[in-house]
Amino acid sequence: MESRLSPPQKVVIGYLLIIIIGALLLLLPWSRHTSVSVTDAVFTSTSALCVTGLSTVTTATTWTSFGDFVIALLMQVGGAGMTLVTTGIYLVLGRKITLRDRVLIAEDRNFGVHGAVRLIRSILIFSLSIEGAAVVLFTLYFCLVYHYTWLRALGISAFHSVSAFNNAGFDLWGNSLEGYHNDPFIVILTSLLIIFGGLGFIVLTELYSYPRKRRLSLHSRIVLFMTGLLLLLGMVLIFVLESNNSMKPLSWGTKLLNAWFTSVTTRTAGFDTIPIGNMSDVTWFVIIILMFIGASPGSTGGGIKTTTFYALVKATLASLKGDEEVEAYGRSIPWTIIRRSMMLFFLATSIVVIGTIIDSILDPRTSLLRFLFEETSAFGTVGLSTGITGFVTTPVKWVLIFTMYVGRVGILTILVGMLHRKGLMSRVKRVQERIFIG
Amino acid sequence: MESRLSPPQKVVIGYLLIIIIGALLLLLPWSRHTSVSVTDAVFTSTSALCVTGLSTVTTATTWTSFGDFVIALLMQVGGAGMTLVTTGIYLVLGRKITLRDRVLIAEDRNFGVHGAVRLIRSILIFSLSIEGAAVVLFTLYFCLVYHYTWLRALGISAFHSVSAFNNAGFDLWGNSLEGYHNDPFIVILTSLLIIFGGLGFIVLTELYSYPRKRRLSLHSRIVLFMTGLLLLLGMVLIFVLESNNSMKPLSWGTKLLNAWFTSVTTRTAGFDTIPIGNMSDVTWFVIIILMFIGASPGSTGGGIKTTTFYALVKATLASLKGDEEVEAYGRSIPWTIIRRSMMLFFLATSIVVIGTIIDSILDPRTSLLRFLFEETSAFGTVGLSTGITGFVTTPVKWVLIFTMYVGRVGILTILVGMLHRKGLMSRVKRVQERIFIG
Ligand SMILES: [K+]
Ligand SMILES: [K+]
Repeated sequence: MESRLSPPQKVVIGYLLIIIIGALLLLLPWSRHTSVSVTDAVFTSTSALCVTGLSTVTTATTWTSFGDFVIALLMQVGGAGMTLVTTGIYLVLGRKITLRDRVLIAEDRNFGVHGAVRLIRSILIFSLSIEGAAVVLFTLYFCLVYHYTWLRALGISAFHSVSAFNNAGFDLWGNSLEGYHNDPFIVILTSLLIIFGGLGFIVLTELYSYPRKRRLSLHSRIVLFMTGLLLLLGMVLIFVLESNNSMKPLSWGTKLLNAWFTSVTTRTAGFDTIPIGNMSDVTWFVIIILMFIGASPGSTGGGIKTTTFYALVKATLASLKGDEEVEAYGRSIPWTIIRRSMMLFFLATSIVVIGTIIDSILDPRTSLLRFLFEETSAFGTVGLSTGITGFVTTPVKWVLIFTMYVGRVGILTILVGMLHRKGLMSRVKRVQERIFIG
Repeated sequence: MESRLSPPQKVVIGYLLIIIIGALLLLLPWSRHTSVSVTDAVFTSTSALCVTGLSTVTTATTWTSFGDFVIALLMQVGGAGMTLVTTGIYLVLGRKITLRDRVLIAEDRNFGVHGAVRLIRSILIFSLSIEGAAVVLFTLYFCLVYHYTWLRALGISAFHSVSAFNNAGFDLWGNSLEGYHNDPFIVILTSLLIIFGGLGFIVLTELYSYPRKRRLSLHSRIVLFMTGLLLLLGMVLIFVLESNNSMKPLSWGTKLLNAWFTSVTTRTAGFDTIPIGNMSDVTWFVIIILMFIGASPGSTGGGIKTTTFYALVKATLASLKGDEEVEAYGRSIPWTIIRRSMMLFFLATSIVVIGTIIDSILDPRTSLLRFLFEETSAFGTVGLSTGITGFVTTPVKWVLIFTMYVGRVGILTILVGMLHRKGLMSRVKRVQERIFIG
């Protein structure tokens, strides 16, 4: 029976099963302080597994320590675990390491030899050591500066570090990081965790070996360039738009710090230091675009991905100039990648737009732009909200559950499915080098 | 000097020159009853030449009969004239008839022989006879039913027919067709003019010879299918969303009539029978999507075009199913067309989004969704508005002028430029047949 399922079908069903198990665990009496509807349990389970971070209930007051543990486990499975699962799928299929990985990691002889096993080990080592270092720093800080007990500091730091590095965005404070908006240590350390978590393991591995090798793949160069550009652009726009609005009472330094964090969190963590609901509709729109683009491939973040967006811009410019090839750093991006980027962009736009229209029809009290924000946030597994998540009607919650699921599993499925197809080759003259998209 | 300009450059400069001449004519004292700023004159000239129909001033009260004549001339040049200009470009280039036309009109031996000259003649004959028939019907109707004088009826009918068939959307009533929302004759005849004008001349020619030949090209079949689908879908959605809102006091028949007309006008005429400003934000969003898709290629309408959207949907579905070819009615759409559709979609989205953000930053009083509507309307040369066009600041007017120009000339330029490049061929097995995009 099981052997008759295709790899994409396994992903779709696997995620569904984990969501159901998660929801059932969350519905147990010792998971919660209050009564929780089935919709809210499924919403929380989906949001945690898809590392979205949208919440219809307040995590801090609704769930017990056991509930928090279930949520953290779902985030870990859904986040760093996702890369392990995909790698596992390749192994099951008897392809020790796929062409995709082979090309990207070809420079590193050690990787090439041991293949997927080494990849899994390196993913685990990277995740756990970055998260571990953050837990130590946060625990010390919360004990020494905020005078938490050691146990409480450790628990909160572990939950927060996993949530930040996996770009999940769940918090145990009840108002995200709003209480720490003028604490540079917490804001900056969290933003570093988010950025590292959003780069993807291939880039992290290459960065780690960069001091020795002095070599970055095309993929890593694009990821680093786009991440830097989007973070900077987002920060400048949010600073300009909000310094006299939601951030008016803050000092200039704190304004810059929070413009930086708001830009970082769209990539696609979903914590906030300044309530999004207080920002202007232009800022919402800018954040919508940043969330839609999202993080980088093979990371714990969502969205259409930085490289996809880069490929789109480059291909459009090439098309306008009449170039046959899409050039990037002296290399040429294959048309099969461009094609997939285009499809993904069109598909993602369609899903977000249709979701927004359905939400608005189901619940006409709420403004369309808030729903556009919420749907983009759900699709990009971001978790930011203008504040409506807890107040929407049950049918809208189910539309959002569906969008979160599709935003993570749908894109993953498309990628897994695509690995087994021969790409459409095109005539190109430059040396070709693949980049990940989606 | 002139011979050193490339065909796309000629289009860009040609349109600029006509806009400037038009604005200068409109600034003449005998063109206007009131004082008019340079911005408003350039806005009106651009809006007329690009057959957009957005107005910062009220056409009925601002311009004299001579001013109206200048506007009508600009519409005629920009509308039906556009097809002549593009055909003219091909002639100047020494290509008597392009591959594009050859493939599409190949079935019709008469067309193939006489080439471009016949094409031009047929465009003129079609435009003038459809417009002429409408002028006669409208003149009779306004005389007999509304008791206009013959001369006034003729003038208004001529202006209105040209404006409707060329999808321009200018009106001499001051409130578009809002005064006639319960007059089925005017609403239906206008909607037919808009639809015929939006189909494009290739489709009109094929429809004209259909009773004899019983053969439609792939292009025509897609255009007719998409036009029907979008009109129906738009009507149903607008009816559902607005029958208890902006159309509440109307009878069921009148509601249906006006839902129909509102759907038709997004393709991309820009008249309205019900004020758009009274509609809900979801309806605005639905109209934004319909305007963005727009009319069909080679027509007087704007937007990314029905066939482009069809190609995008089909390519995405093919990609999801893992098909190498994009199938349509048993034929395969070449990848070079798909690629251009994708580029156009991405480019159009980027322009509208960036325009909206700039507008919102320049004029924070107005809501972002109204600007998104206005920018889409400007880019798609639609001319519908939530009612802000006359009240935006001068910098925003210039952004809108730029968007109108790019929405018409930019896309035209890309098409003209693309005709001179060898497409990237892909390996396909089915019989290939081209469709127009953009
Ligand atoms: K998230
Ligand atoms: K128009």
